[in-house]
Amino acid sequence: MLNLEFLFPGKTREVYLAEGVDDFRKRLARYAEVEIKTLKDVRPAGKPDGQIKKEEGEAILARLNPKALVIALDPGGRTLSSEELAGQIGTWEAGGRHHLTFLVGGALGLSPEVLARADFRLSLSRLTFTHEMARLILLEQIYRAFNIRAGTGYHK
Amino acid sequence: MLNLEFLFPGKTREVYLAEGVDDFRKRLARYAEVEIKTLKDVRPAGKPDGQIKKEEGEAILARLNPKALVIALDPGGRTLSSEELAGQIGTWEAGGRHHLTFLVGGALGLSPEVLARADFRLSLSRLTFTHEMARLILLEQIYRAFNIRAGTGYHK
Repeated sequence: MLNLEFLFPGKTREVYLAEGVDDFRKRLARYAEVEIKTLKDVRPAGKPDGQIKKEEGEAILARLNPKALVIALDPGGRTLSSEELAGQIGTWEAGGRHHLTFLVGGALGLSPEVLARADFRLSLSRLTFTHEMARLILLEQIYRAFNIRAGTGYHK
Repeated sequence: MLNLEFLFPGKTREVYLAEGVDDFRKRLARYAEVEIKTLKDVRPAGKPDGQIKKEEGEAILARLNPKALVIALDPGGRTLSSEELAGQIGTWEAGGRHHLTFLVGGALGLSPEVLARADFRLSLSRLTFTHEMARLILLEQIYRAFNIRAGTGYHK
């Protein structure tokens, strides 16, 4: 069984998005070990943006499992169809990578150091989403991927 | 002031998504006349898929304002960046199109007749979203577009 880990800087503040994320976390638990880790917020007011991004990045890097295959959401990353994403997860699994860690940056995005560590950079869309909405979209897509793999009717 | 109309077949069942849609509807009201019209659900169990799609399409076509510029969400449509979408809305407005109607299909998508009527087909992503999530993503993108036009900090 795959181990899916989601690392998010700061809790999901928008209540309806937090509910959606939690809904898909529970549904995904049918298919994989799922853990959502919310990192301590490093955004006290007054810090310059670059400093916030750097600290968020350091907190992420410090929490990464060395064995993890790291997928970072990045507007400059690859766009995939849902079927391709499902296939990609299958390829990783077949290659013996059983620990997948998904990273979504904060409002400022991920630091260059984190992007450099990522094994795969994924773009959800040409459109820009809020980082909190990206969390929900990501969870739904991963749930969709497992449904595609399992051949359920969810994705039809 | 632009008139923005959203036509959805059936109410948004997932409560957290309905809350998000309503949140952005309210926020958009600062920038435009906004109306979300939920069409009567034509999905009693047992109807074949083609029939449901056709009836949903007919209900949509019957409700369209003849003056409306119609934007249909369609996986086969054009993908735009958020900035391009904002620019496109500006182009329509400059061309005297003040009534924009956005269509999101039901679980089965929009009928060929509806897609044929559309002035613009928009794809949100190569990824497939549920039609209810597409509603939320669309509302947020339109809100984002107006923030880009207004030069607020929302989209930074």
